[in-house]
Amino acid sequence: MRGSKVYIALLHYPMYNKNRDIVTTSITNLDLHDIARAARTYDVDGFYVVHPSASQQNLIGEILAYWQDGYGGLYNEDRREAFRLLKLKEDLKSVVDDITAGTGKKVYAVATDASPYANCISYSQLKTEVFNSDKVYLLFFGTGWGMAQKILDQCNYILEPIYGAGDYNHLSVRSAVTIIMDRLLGDFWYCR
Amino acid sequence: MRGSKVYIALLHYPMYNKNRDIVTTSITNLDLHDIARAARTYDVDGFYVVHPSASQQNLIGEILAYWQDGYGGLYNEDRREAFRLLKLKEDLKSVVDDITAGTGKKVYAVATDASPYANCISYSQLKTEVFNSDKVYLLFFGTGWGMAQKILDQCNYILEPIYGAGDYNHLSVRSAVTIIMDRLLGDFWYCR
Repeated sequence: MRGSKVYIALLHYPMYNKNRDIVTTSITNLDLHDIARAARTYDVDGFYVVHPSASQQNLIGEILAYWQDGYGGLYNEDRREAFRLLKLKEDLKSVVDDITAGTGKKVYAVATDASPYANCISYSQLKTEVFNSDKVYLLFFGTGWGMAQKILDQCNYILEPIYGAGDYNHLSVRSAVTIIMDRLLGDFWYCR
Repeated sequence: MRGSKVYIALLHYPMYNKNRDIVTTSITNLDLHDIARAARTYDVDGFYVVHPSASQQNLIGEILAYWQDGYGGLYNEDRREAFRLLKLKEDLKSVVDDITAGTGKKVYAVATDASPYANCISYSQLKTEVFNSDKVYLLFFGTGWGMAQKILDQCNYILEPIYGAGDYNHLSVRSAVTIIMDRLLGDFWYCR
């Protein structure tokens, strides 16, 4: 059993676009589904979708209403169970405040990025911490072409990139979140 | 370096629906994107999308044309590189024939399922085989509520289910494929 609490957040601002300008990205419906399902599978304590724009917040609200309280959740109870973990916030500070209010503990912020940094923490180091400490972790994930440097600068840890079998590292954020949950929070399949 | 060749196939017939009737499922655009990107990341030798219906084959053809030869691939070269791995086939037999023709070797069929079976192979057993043998493997994945029993009966191996942190196992097929690629073909992060 894991000793710590682990939350995840999906960010849409400030992100880079293809030309490395700072932009706000749009919501992708299947990001919410796939990440909520993975979060429920790996017993994540909460999944925050973070967006600064009122119109996109309304869209998220409609999706949530359909799956949390509407026909979607009646038709597919497993999906409702996954969507129960999802909360909408307007910025990262509100996420940290919400977790702090709920746990009464310091939040350790863990950024994820497809590029390597000098002070990266490895999956096995962080997995050991997560299973053996009673700390509170918040892992956050970017969209578009990745999160702005200033977010990376604010975090306590940067998780090492996912290495596949070469130098191609263009997984979807849905795939990256799922792999990271599986590595950090999943069972110890490599010991069987 | 991996010694074997590994192919994957995404099946849409014969699948179960929610009531365990046999059905044909529809193509999901992001299945193609996410699985192609994961396949490229983990150096999979080919990704087959298998569908029996002419109209759905046309849809897949249009998506492929856009990303393999059209504007999509020009705008996003990484995506084109991923889509290059994707081939369309009408049934599983055509997939096996195509791989056999290309490799001249016997194809070992590996089914994946969310339910456990008595003769399951573990991830570490199959990873050891995949890295150390020069065999040819085809992993196939179902859609909808999972693949019909008769497909499972034809395969050489059934891979153990993905265990998260409890009994909830309702990952999207995109997530499941990605985790399985990461476990079987990914780097040995748990040794670092």
